[in-house]
This record gives sequence, structure tokens and C-alpha cells, in this order.
Amino acid sequence: MNLQELPFTLFSLRASYRNGIAAADVVREAYRRLAAADDPGIFIHLADMDEVIAEADALGPYDPEKPLWGIPFAVKDNIDAAGMPTTCACPNFGYIAEKDAFVVARLKAAGALLIGKTNLDQFATGLVGTRTPYPVPRNALDPDIVPGGSSSGSAVVVSRGILPFSLGTDTAGSGRVPAALNNIVGLKPSLGALSASGMVPACRTLDTISIFALTAEDAFAVYQVAAAYDDSDAYSRRHPAPVIYAGEQGLSVGVPDQASRQFFDDEAQAAMFEAALARLEAMGHRIVPVDFSPLYQIADLLYSGAWVAERYVATERVMQANPRAMHPVTRRIIAQAENLSAADVFKSMYRLAELRRAIEPLLADLDLLCVPSIPCFVTLADLAEDPIGPNSRLGTYTNFVNLMDMCGIAVPVSARGDGRPGSVTLLAQAGRDGRIAGLAAALQADAAAPLGAVGWSCPPVRATRSVAAGGEIAVALVGAHMRGLPLNHEVTRLGGRFLFEGKTAPDYRFYALAGGPPKRPGLVRAAGGGPIALEAWAIPLSRFGDFMAGIPSPLGIGTISLASGETIKGFLCETAGLDGAEEITAFGGWRAYLDAQRR
Amino acid sequence: MNLQELPFTLFSLRASYRNGIAAADVVREAYRRLAAADDPGIFIHLADMDEVIAEADALGPYDPEKPLWGIPFAVKDNIDAAGMPTTCACPNFGYIAEKDAFVVARLKAAGALLIGKTNLDQFATGLVGTRTPYPVPRNALDPDIVPGGSSSGSAVVVSRGILPFSLGTDTAGSGRVPAALNNIVGLKPSLGALSASGMVPACRTLDTISIFALTAEDAFAVYQVAAAYDDSDAYSRRHPAPVIYAGEQGLSVGVPDQASRQFFDDEAQAAMFEAALARLEAMGHRIVPVDFSPLYQIADLLYSGAWVAERYVATERVMQANPRAMHPVTRRIIAQAENLSAADVFKSMYRLAELRRAIEPLLADLDLLCVPSIPCFVTLADLAEDPIGPNSRLGTYTNFVNLMDMCGIAVPVSARGDGRPGSVTLLAQAGRDGRIAGLAAALQADAAAPLGAVGWSCPPVRATRSVAAGGEIAVALVGAHMRGLPLNHEVTRLGGRFLFEGKTAPDYRFYALAGGPPKRPGLVRAAGGGPIALEAWAIPLSRFGDFMAGIPSPLGIGTISLASGETIKGFLCETAGLDGAEEITAFGGWRAYLDAQRR
Repeated sequence: MNLQELPFTLFSLRASYRNGIAAADVVREAYRRLAAADDPGIFIHLADMDEVIAEADALGPYDPEKPLWGIPFAVKDNIDAAGMPTTCACPNFGYIAEKDAFVVARLKAAGALLIGKTNLDQFATGLVGTRTPYPVPRNALDPDIVPGGSSSGSAVVVSRGILPFSLGTDTAGSGRVPAALNNIVGLKPSLGALSASGMVPACRTLDTISIFALTAEDAFAVYQVAAAYDDSDAYSRRHPAPVIYAGEQGLSVGVPDQASRQFFDDEAQAAMFEAALARLEAMGHRIVPVDFSPLYQIADLLYSGAWVAERYVATERVMQANPRAMHPVTRRIIAQAENLSAADVFKSMYRLAELRRAIEPLLADLDLLCVPSIPCFVTLADLAEDPIGPNSRLGTYTNFVNLMDMCGIAVPVSARGDGRPGSVTLLAQAGRDGRIAGLAAALQADAAAPLGAVGWSCPPVRATRSVAAGGEIAVALVGAHMRGLPLNHEVTRLGGRFLFEGKTAPDYRFYALAGGPPKRPGLVRAAGGGPIALEAWAIPLSRFGDFMAGIPSPLGIGTISLASGETIKGFLCETAGLDGAEEITAFGGWRAYLDAQRR
Repeated sequence: MNLQELPFTLFSLRASYRNGIAAADVVREAYRRLAAADDPGIFIHLADMDEVIAEADALGPYDPEKPLWGIPFAVKDNIDAAGMPTTCACPNFGYIAEKDAFVVARLKAAGALLIGKTNLDQFATGLVGTRTPYPVPRNALDPDIVPGGSSSGSAVVVSRGILPFSLGTDTAGSGRVPAALNNIVGLKPSLGALSASGMVPACRTLDTISIFALTAEDAFAVYQVAAAYDDSDAYSRRHPAPVIYAGEQGLSVGVPDQASRQFFDDEAQAAMFEAALARLEAMGHRIVPVDFSPLYQIADLLYSGAWVAERYVATERVMQANPRAMHPVTRRIIAQAENLSAADVFKSMYRLAELRRAIEPLLADLDLLCVPSIPCFVTLADLAEDPIGPNSRLGTYTNFVNLMDMCGIAVPVSARGDGRPGSVTLLAQAGRDGRIAGLAAALQADAAAPLGAVGWSCPPVRATRSVAAGGEIAVALVGAHMRGLPLNHEVTRLGGRFLFEGKTAPDYRFYALAGGPPKRPGLVRAAGGGPIALEAWAIPLSRFGDFMAGIPSPLGIGTISLASGETIKGFLCETAGLDGAEEITAFGGWRAYLDAQRR
């Protein structure tokens, strides 16, 4: 394939590198595409191409152990990169960073090549992308529409196929809104999953670095490299190891009920959302309408409440010494903090705690939420009339997320009737990044919409068999805990998730134990046995004790050898418990035995 | 025993009730003792004795299922009791409560009889007990010493033997400092363990209701009744079920190192603390000196930082409408909040997060901390000279605790050389209330100091055999995981704790498995076996998955029958794993087998 036509996705770049293409040539091509885009608003600082080429050459031969080997990327200009200026789109605030942000250093160590710092709504305050003293980046699909922000340049550069991924940040939706407006994926990790060391804060208690890519799997591949506990960041947290959940079925998906949907008269957007939910249902998931009013009340707290004072703390140096150096809209928003008292902060926090408590029962039985990423589109003309209102509307479905401590991923779905991009955002409790990314990948593959502004086709989903994540334990089930059988709820109730079907090694004997009904199975390793069908499920390590406590004698948990040669934990039966049992090894599994009983 | 001589502890009152004493007579005796104490400062509101007697009579015959049947108690006057005024020691603020606070309702439902509302430092702001427009309660031991606060009346009434327990509250030490000054136990639960519904907040994010009693076991018995999740309190949290940890051994106890001990020249207090640590060591625990400087920095945040604004929110109605209705010292302290901005709050919170992060490594290997409850004594004369400084000194070892999200218990130890009461406070991470209460009970029994101001002798410790708590699973260990054997650290590393020694039912066969060294044991239920020695350990449910993941084939976890007839989870071996094993059932246990091998 001609390099000029090569889709800049991790999927195709890795394939090209395996086939011997040079990283330096990919760097040159990225700069060529950037020049061709002719948009001076994307970058605030661009690295010298020859220097990046020298870094590419220094990588040596292709190393598939480095997951981002030779992948060019950019970061929003509120994230430090050694030797480059950090301005937050406020030149007066600027400084030359002495070292890479923690996350940038991890990406570089994995072989990624940084080409520059992208434009943003000043101090990451805004969802439109126009609040910058630099030229405003053009929306990659339609120059009349705002590029979206605050991570404007990072979204546009990926949508245009110039770079396979970029970093943004997200406090109120800055990592999701521009993804929706530019037809790309925006992954907003759980708070604390990506270190904020070397990132200029907006609201330090609510910020996270975010990731843009053309596909959900690419975004998650970058997340896997970037995510690590950092004890130098007081807000870093230990989350489960980042593993994508592939092939999950039968998830409960909470969505705004009809009364609490907000589209500001954009009928095409409403239809887009309905169509996306229909696809989720067709894929076997359950749609659960929920009253979103309390979530909107939480969203209102973000700007009407006390958190704007965090933005004041982050910009205090400029706000006090040189307020005119700031963008007038940004200054107006942040200056509200000057009228907020310490008491106001605690009142907001109490209110947040009460709203979160009220929402808990609504969310308890849901696996995730699905919302439109944006309620409507906003044009540059809309914004010229009113710089605040249209911006606020864009945050309808994003502003509550960080205050709720949820992770989110905005993912393209089928385009709207009028050709504008479709996008929904999947949301889940902190630590479930792998679940929403896995479902986003499936949803994107199902829609098969052309990627970004470039229209490349969506590559096939790679992850097909799930594995247990760092915070989970894989357990082989051989009886009524399996899917569709009476005790399956005991596994799902604990947050268990299906991994794969398999068989034991061929030296297990299988029994229907005495007693019942219902009959219970017993698996015993013994000569003269056969392979027995099983299901592997991942159970959160933190809940496994609850699971164990409910397992009655003579059953227990031991180590089972699979036909594949792997070993996993799973149900075994004490030999002493076989008195009066019927050997059913010949059925090869509990389902086959049950079927035979019914005949 | 003459009723006038009956020690008012749960221990002796329950015994008396079993023997037929009437609850009404105990109520009369409480009022008699109160009158004899002749201290008009203890109560702000006292119930009419005849009404309480009517309630006592309404209890009917003694019901041992009600753990507080017939036990008279009092609550600090910032906690609501239906039909009684709540004043917070600020008459202008007062109102008649419509219903009982959540905790008060639980205590009454368990049979307890409320006799009134006790005096406090106004709005629970202070550690001295003198900041009240009502008469100041007299210290129960020495009228020259301050009674301590803010829960002054509740501490004095228990120390004088008038009531077996009372409720205080604790934000900065108000549940511990008066305990130390009056020679009683002050239990400050984990934040969120006792509902704050119906309590007037001081700092709502840091407050908890606390418990005073003469003995650690009595305090914990009240805690067991009071602790429950309350979804109407946004700060309520789900903690492990409250079970006291009896007989723990070999705990790592962090203490301030010599350089970071503060006694303000009170040599007798320094000697008291050294003597208490020597007793802990003599009881088999390990003393680990730690630099407490970062904890003192956290303590400084409580009043110098932004949390004073929470007190402002709680008192805003009076502060704005009628500031002169407040005690002048209280008003001066709370008025500081008027100069604090919203930005100041977030700066304080960032600082707290950073300090907590810095302290984490210091605490990681410790089971608990032990500090002097107070660094020195404060007289009324000291306070007349300076109303702030001596108050601050009293909080040296208490102010950081709630900001660190730790639970604590102040417990009397041997008296000082000058006869003043000795007291240390045990502290642990939230949820470990049962651990510190268990050790406090052991420490108090070891010291055998006379109780409170009345000098009754300390009753024997009742809890001798530990049981698994709600957040734990009991597991029978039969091999190298037992105490003193090579794999014991795998259990303690996960927060496991020893419960008791026992034996299996007499139908288990025991084997030394093939392979090794080291040799591994295998337990299999089978005819012709015998009873096998085991140790039961409690492992946190949340960590059991980690434990399971480390258990190799052919071992697993199943259900084991004990000689006592109980069943618990425990180590079993697959029959298929016995090839080449040596049967060692006759040794009766792994230790006996190992001993025989060494001979």
C-alpha cells in the first residue's frame, strides 16, 4: 500500500512495521498530512520534523514488544513534554517543561514519538474549542461546526488521520465532546488511573488525562500503556489492571428515559440515539430507562457550585498578576470563584454527597450507562451570538460524569440522517474502563461507520476471548452457575463476567450427586475420566470470599487442568461426597446431562 | 449487693438483672447518684425521673436478647432525642427534636433508657469543656483540672459511676480527650460507622458520634448496637460487622519516635506512656517507632486549614443573625471562616491529599498506632490565662485522626506517678474498630487500674475466643500457614487474624504429600481417619480471592467439619493428589508430624 494511503491506526501501522516500513517515513508522512490539512490552529507547538525523525531512527529495528513502537502522537498543551513550552493556550502562563509528564514518559518508553502540543480552550475551560488566543482549529468534518473542546487540536489531528492517537484532558467533558464532534473515539479513564503528574490542573480533584483515537481498541491499547499507579500524584489510585472485556453479553444498560432526554430540538440527534440503542438491544443487551434528573442536578454543581474555585487555584498566578492576559470568556468564568466562600465549597460537597447517595439505588442493578455524547451540534455562528449557552448545552451528558467518579468512552456509531456523525458515550463506575471499552469496540464494529474525517473502514475487532484482569480470578464453573442455569445470578451478582467456554483435561470424572432436587454436579480428578464442558468466569478478587462462603459441602474450589493445557481455579468435589452419586462422565458436561434428563 | 454499691457497668448490671433486680430501681439509683454528685454542669436537660421509671417499667420482664435492656444512658446535647431540646450549649440555637437521632433510636430499641442531654463545649468546638454558657462540669477526679471536651458532661457522668455509658461526638478529639481526663474509655468509631442522622454537625465530613464507658468491652458492646448503615445519611458507610478481635498476638504497633513525642514538659506523662508501651511489649506486641511529624502537619490543617468553614456552615443561622448569642471564644474561632475563600478550601484539600500520600508508606506495615491520649494536663487556671493555647495542646494526638480516616479508642492504663490517670489511645485504619477495641480491653485488664472516679475494679475480659466478623471468612489451616510456620506470612499479609485452635471431626485422613522439600500436608475426608489439629483464621472477604489464587494443586478450599460440630471453610486435598503420599493421620496434626521428623 502506498504510504500516503495507509490508514494511521495502530492496527495498520503495526502491520506495516512488521512488513518493514521505516518509522521515519511514517513521521514524514504525518508532517505531510499536517501540511496538507492547512490548519494553523491545530498545534500550538510543533516539534522540528528532523528531530522527530532522528528519534524514530534511534528506535532501531521494529520491536513488537514495544506496543507503541514508531507511533507518532501529540498531546494537549496543558500536559508537559520535556523541552517544549506548556502554555494552556495562555502565552503569559507559559513555561518550558523540564521533564515529560508521567504519562508522556510511559508512552515514549513504549516507542511512541511526540510531534507536538495541541491547541485547547484556554486552561481547559470550555467544550467548544474556540476560547483560545491562537487560531481556532477547524472541525475536521464541517468548518461551520465548532471543533469542540477543550481538547480541540488533539481531536482534530486524529480525525484528519494525521496521527493515530493523541492525549487530551477531561474534567467536564473535554475528552468526549470533541470526539463526538469529529467522529472519533474519546476515552475518559477512571479518575486516578492515569497519573496527573506533569499536567496543569483544571479541577485537580476531577481531572484526568484522556485519549483520542479512531477506534475504541486503539484508544484502549494506549490506555494500557499509560495506566499505572504513580505515588508522586496524590490523586493517583490503584485500579484493576487494564484488560479489555471482550464478548460480554446480556449487559444491563441504563439510558435516560424519554422524559429526561435532552436534544434541544435536534431531532436527528434524538433519532441517532434511538438507533444506537436499538443496535445495543440487537446485540443482546438490555436497555433500562432511568430518570436522569438527579444526574443533571449533579452536572449543575460543576459550574454553579464550588468546583470553579479549583480552576481559580490552578490559574491564580495569572488571575492575580495579569488577568488581562486571559481570554475574556475564560476570565469571566474563573473570576466567579472570587465570590465563593469556603462555606460555599462545603455546602456544594454536602449537596454532591446527598445527590450521589440518592442516585445509588438507580445505578445498583445496572452494568453501565449509555448516553448521547452531545445533545446537539453547535455552530461557530451560534457561539458568536452567545459564548456561554451553547457551550453549556454541549456538556449536558458529560458534566456529571467526573463528579460521579465514573469512566466513559465516546464512540462513533452510524451517522445521522443528515450525514453528521453519530456518537454515544458509555459510562460505568470507576475501574470498569475495560468493560466500556470492550462494548464500545463491539458497538463501533457493529456500526462499521467510516473512521474520523478520513473515512477509512473500521478494522475488525481483535479481542475475541476475554481473560481475567488483574483484580479478578478466573473460575471454571461446571454446573448450575453457568449461563442460563438457576445459580448464574450468584456469579453475576458478585460482578462476575463470562470469559469463555472450554473443557477439562481428559482425566476428570463427573457425577450427579445424591440428594436434591435440584441435582448438583461433582467433578473429581481420577483415572478413567473424560473431558468435561465448563465455562470460565472472571470474579472480582474482592468478591471471591463472598462466593466461597456460599459453596456447600462436599463442593469446594481447587485447581483444574483444561484441555488447552492451562490451569484455572474451579469447582471440585470431595471424593467422600460421592456416596450414592451417579457417574455422568459420558455426558461430557452438565448441560448435556440436563438435556438428557428432560427427554 | 446493696444497689448503692453496685458498679454501673454492663457486666454487673446484666448480672443483677438476671438475678431479678428491677430496671426502675436502677433508674432511681442513677438519679440518686447524680444528686449526690452535686454538679449542676453535667446535664443541660434532664428527663423527669418518673417518666424514665415509667419507660423502665414498660420494658417488661428482663430480656437478655436486648443487649442494653434497662441500661440508663445520656447523650451529648448536639444529638437529638425526641421531645427534648437540642441546644449545642447555645440556647439561642435550641429547638425541640421531633425524633430520635438514628443511633439513639437503635439504643432505645435495644432496651436502653435515656435520662438526658449533657453539657459540651458550645457547638462541639473545643477540647476543654469550659466553653459553655451553662455551669462548667467538674472534672470527676480533680476539680482543678478541666473536665475536657467537647463532650464534657457525657464523660464526667460515666466517670462518676452515674451511668454505665453515654454518647459524645468526635471531630478533633472530643470523644477521647475527656475520656483521658476522667479515667474512662472513649471509643471514636470509624467515620460513617455510626449514622450522623439527628446529630448537629461540627465538621460534617469529619464528625462521628462517640461512646464513653468505664471499660473497653462495655464501649464496644454499645458500638455493636449503634453501628448500622443508614441510607438517609450521605456520609454513612458500610464497614465490616462490628466484632471484637479477642486474643490477637504479635501486632505491630507504631508509636511516635523519641524526637516526635510531645509532652510539653510533663515528665510524668512521658513516663506513663513509656510504661504503657512496655506493657504492650510484655503482652507480645512489637513497638515500632515512627516519625509523627507528617501526622502533626495534618493536625495543623484542621484549624489552620479550611475545615473551620464546616463549623461555620453548621452554625450559620446563629453566626449571621445573632453572633452575640455565641460563646465569645467559640465565635472567635468560627468567625475565622469568614476570611476563607473557596480557593483556600481546595488548597487545604490538596495539601491533605499530599500529606496522606506521604504517610502511606509509614503506615503500610503497621497493624495500629498507639499514642498518649493527651500530652499533658490542663488546669482551669491555665485556661483562664489563655483560652486557646492549652486547648490546642490537648489535641496534639487527636487532631489528625479524623482527617486520616482512622478509628480510635482512648483507654485507661496504670496511673501516673503523681496519681493522675494514665491513658493511651489506639488508632487504626477505618473499619478496624474491633481490633483496637480488643487490644484496648486486653491492655485495660492488664493494667487493672480502678475504674473512672469511682474506683471499682476492672471486670474480667469476656471475649476470649474470636469469631470471624461480617467482612471476614473463617478458614481452617492445617499446615505451613499456621502460626510460626513458614507460610504464616501469606495469611497475615492479607490481613488475616488468628481465631482459635481446634480439631477436625474424627473422619479425616491426613497425608504428607509426595514431593518437596518442603513437605506439604493433605487433608481428605475418608472413613478410618481421626481428628486433625487445625487453626482457624479470619481472612478479610475482600482478600480471600488473593489467598485462593496462591493455593497450588492438588490443594483447594472446601468445607471441613470440626470436632465441635461446627463447619468452616478449610484446606482439603484432591484424592487424585495422594499418589506417593505418606499417611500421617496418627500424628494428629502437622506440628506433631514436623516435631517427629526433627527428632
